[in-house]
Order: sequence, then structure tokens, then C-alpha cells
Amino acid sequence: MGETLQLLKIGGRLLGQPDTLHSLLRQFLAFEGRHLLVHGGGQRASALGRKLGSPARLVDGRRITDAPTLEIVTMVYAGLYNKQLVARLQAFGCNALGLTGADGNTILARKRPVGDIDYGFAGDIDRTDAPGIRTLLLNGYTPVFCAITHDGRGQLLNTNADTIAAELARGLAAHFSVKLYFCLDKNGVLADAGDDASVIPQLSQPEYDRLKASGSIHSGMIPKLDNAFLAQAAGAQVTICGPASFANQTGTQLSL
Amino acid sequence: MGETLQLLKIGGRLLGQPDTLHSLLRQFLAFEGRHLLVHGGGQRASALGRKLGSPARLVDGRRITDAPTLEIVTMVYAGLYNKQLVARLQAFGCNALGLTGADGNTILARKRPVGDIDYGFAGDIDRTDAPGIRTLLLNGYTPVFCAITHDGRGQLLNTNADTIAAELARGLAAHFSVKLYFCLDKNGVLADAGDDASVIPQLSQPEYDRLKASGSIHSGMIPKLDNAFLAQAAGAQVTICGPASFANQTGTQLSL
Repeated sequence: MGETLQLLKIGGRLLGQPDTLHSLLRQFLAFEGRHLLVHGGGQRASALGRKLGSPARLVDGRRITDAPTLEIVTMVYAGLYNKQLVARLQAFGCNALGLTGADGNTILARKRPVGDIDYGFAGDIDRTDAPGIRTLLLNGYTPVFCAITHDGRGQLLNTNADTIAAELARGLAAHFSVKLYFCLDKNGVLADAGDDASVIPQLSQPEYDRLKASGSIHSGMIPKLDNAFLAQAAGAQVTICGPASFANQTGTQLSL
Repeated sequence: MGETLQLLKIGGRLLGQPDTLHSLLRQFLAFEGRHLLVHGGGQRASALGRKLGSPARLVDGRRITDAPTLEIVTMVYAGLYNKQLVARLQAFGCNALGLTGADGNTILARKRPVGDIDYGFAGDIDRTDAPGIRTLLLNGYTPVFCAITHDGRGQLLNTNADTIAAELARGLAAHFSVKLYFCLDKNGVLADAGDDASVIPQLSQPEYDRLKASGSIHSGMIPKLDNAFLAQAAGAQVTICGPASFANQTGTQLSL
């Protein structure tokens, strides 16, 4: 698979912790190979929404994205957080390039069909342009993706950042040896959600299925791990970690 | 000078007029050669600032950019308006790529020194990376720049969009035959500010100097035209127009 691509997904909470973020990014950039980042920013978007009279409405951790909310997440994800990250990376000498899926038509999505719930302008990914992103990487850019995509017909769409990270890892696994890190608050997947020290060092797909069935792994971790296992199945090497376990290269390693 | 680069600067007011913007962009993309856009968004930033308790403070049309205001302009320029424009251009089949000066380190600026007035996080341009932008253009991208730059040390800076357009035109004039359009509300430079029909079809530098000295051209038009003449002097062909005069290729043509 040739060159290594280090792909880091950082959650919104980390973006609000400048010191932790600073050392995390330094460590990440020291990893050999090319680099790509994906970030969220939901907490800040919710805070801005409250101020603007559009409080967040979440169903199973997914944001109901009406028109005002789409403007809010576009401002926070693609504007504030993306550009702050890009400027910070540039200060490290990393030639960062901030992107939504609309930029360079890198991620095409479709508006989620209305079922029991109308998620509004939420996008489900149709395809990532792995060859185009590879060209940017080979030209020395470090793409920094936020959680916004488009439908190719002029509509921006709010798209889960974990899904974007996993889909990029899947697509780019055809071109690179991809190492994908999901950096959360916790130091990995916990055997006991109440015990932060119960990090599972290796998690196989069958073991995951068992823990999911038993209810040990639940709620927000399920879509995250479902995505992560899809990336692992496509050839990426996936680690679930937190800032501390990222630093000492522990966390939860997935296996098939 | 080889290939033509069509460079369009659109004001923030136009961004709030979807229909006018739609036909303007269609016309622009039909022009032969490569394309590059620069946009503002000041009015919307001011509106958001009012809602968030940071009302705009302008001195001679330049925004005092304290820390909350920098967040606001970053959200509106780099987030909302930039990504709406990019998505719209993608719908036209144009491979738009939204950029601040931090992205790809394309525009390096420095914080304006505090003189009589402290403009806060306002940036004056040090250099544009014309070769890097040329590479993006030749790879088929249409760069869409908003009015945000950086200092290379992690700090984003609010930078006048007219200045960005003029500086990009100056830098890229070494690589392309640059046609630069400043698209305003009025249909060009007016001989009489009170008469919208008094568009000056051709404006030379000496004539401009004369009109400036006599007070016929004043306030906001002066920095705009100073920038525009710098670009013209660097080899760009500059037109000051409005949506209507852009459509019929009239407006004010600058000459040296």
C-alpha cells in the first residue's frame, strides 16, 4: 500500500482545549507519512445556537439541522474551528488546507430521507473523491476536513465527522497505508462505561458484536465503532483513543 | 502573459441577493480562461455581531477587529458565505475551492501596528503565494478567497477583500493575463456620487488623482481605487462595475 497516511479525527470538545490540542497536533505531525485531519465542533455550535435562538435538537446524538442550524454549523465548523486549526497547523510548518466536502467536490452526500425523524439538512455520504484528495496530499497539503458536505446541487449538508473520517479512510486505503485515530475524551473503548481505566486494548469485530449485544457498549459509541470497523475492514488500521492514550500510543486497537 | 485569469471581487451586499448573484456567477464562469473569486461579507458580519452583543465599529470603512469580532468575521466570511459560494459554484460544474489566506499559506499578513487607532486583529498583506495559487488553478480548481488571512504564527487576521483581490491580481499578473473586476452596487466609478448614471467609462491614473484632489471621488472609493490602480500598474486589466454593467461589459475601465 506504499506510503502511510495518518488520519486523525478530533472531537469538538478537544477544540475547546488549546493546550491539549497543541500537544496532540505536535505529536500527530511527528508521525511519519502524510497527514489528514477531520474535526467536529458540535458543542460550540450548540452554544452559538442557544445565543441565536436556535437551541440544538439532537436525536441519538444526531443534530436536527433546520435552515438556521445549518448556517450555525457551517459558521462554526467550516469557519471558526476549521480556520483556527488551519492557522495553528501552519504555525507548525504544516501546509494545512481546510475543506468542506463542497471544496474541490471532495465529499458528495445526499440529504437524509425523512423517515420517523426529519433530520433536515443532514447529509449521508455518497462518495469521497479519494484520487482528488490523494493529489492534494501528494502536493504537500494536509487536508483538514470539517463536518460539512454538499449534494452537488448547491446545498450544503451537515454530516457526522466520525462518518467522514471513516469514509475518507475507506477511500484512501486504496492509495495509502491508512492509520486512523479517533481521538475522544476517554482513552479508548471502555469495558465498563463507568470506569475510565477499563480500556480494552484490542477489540475484534466478533468481540464488539458481543459487547454491543450485551449492552456493554451503547449509545454514542455504537455509530462511532460501526464506522470505525467499516474503515478497518477496508484496510485502515484503526485506534480509538483519548489525548493521553494517543500520546503513549495505547488506546483501543481494532481488529477484524 | 499566456492564459487569461478572470478575477472577480464581489461585495458582501451581492452575497445577500441570491438571484443577482446567480446570474453574475453564470456570466463570470462563461468568460474564457481560469477563474478566481474574492468576496467580503461585512454586512452579514455586522448583523451577526449585533445579535451576539459585539456591534460593528468601523473607522473609515475599516472594521475594528477585537477578539469576538474576529470570531464573527471568521464564521461569516470563511464559514457561511465562503461555503455557500463554493457549493453554488460546484452546482455550476465549477470545481471551487474555498480559501482563507491561512489555507495553503496562500496569503501571509501582519497585524496592523497600533497607531492613532487600534484596528485589533486586522491584517496588512505581506505576500501572496502566486506560484502556489497558480498550481491550484492549473489543477482545475477555482479558488474562492474570503477576507481572512493569517500571520503564519497561528493568528487569523481580518483583511480587506478589495486589498486581497488587488494583491492577488498583482501577484498572478506574473503568470496570467489577469482581468480584475470589482463588482459593487453602483455600475462603476461615478463622476457625480449622487447620479448613478454618471459612470466614467475610462479612468486614467492622472484623471483619478485629479478627481481625488477635487473631492469628486471620496471616502470608501479611495482605498478601493488605490488598490485597483496598483493592480493595473502590475499588469492587470481592471474594471469597476456593478451587476448590470458587468452583464453588458461596461462599467469603468482603468488605464495608467
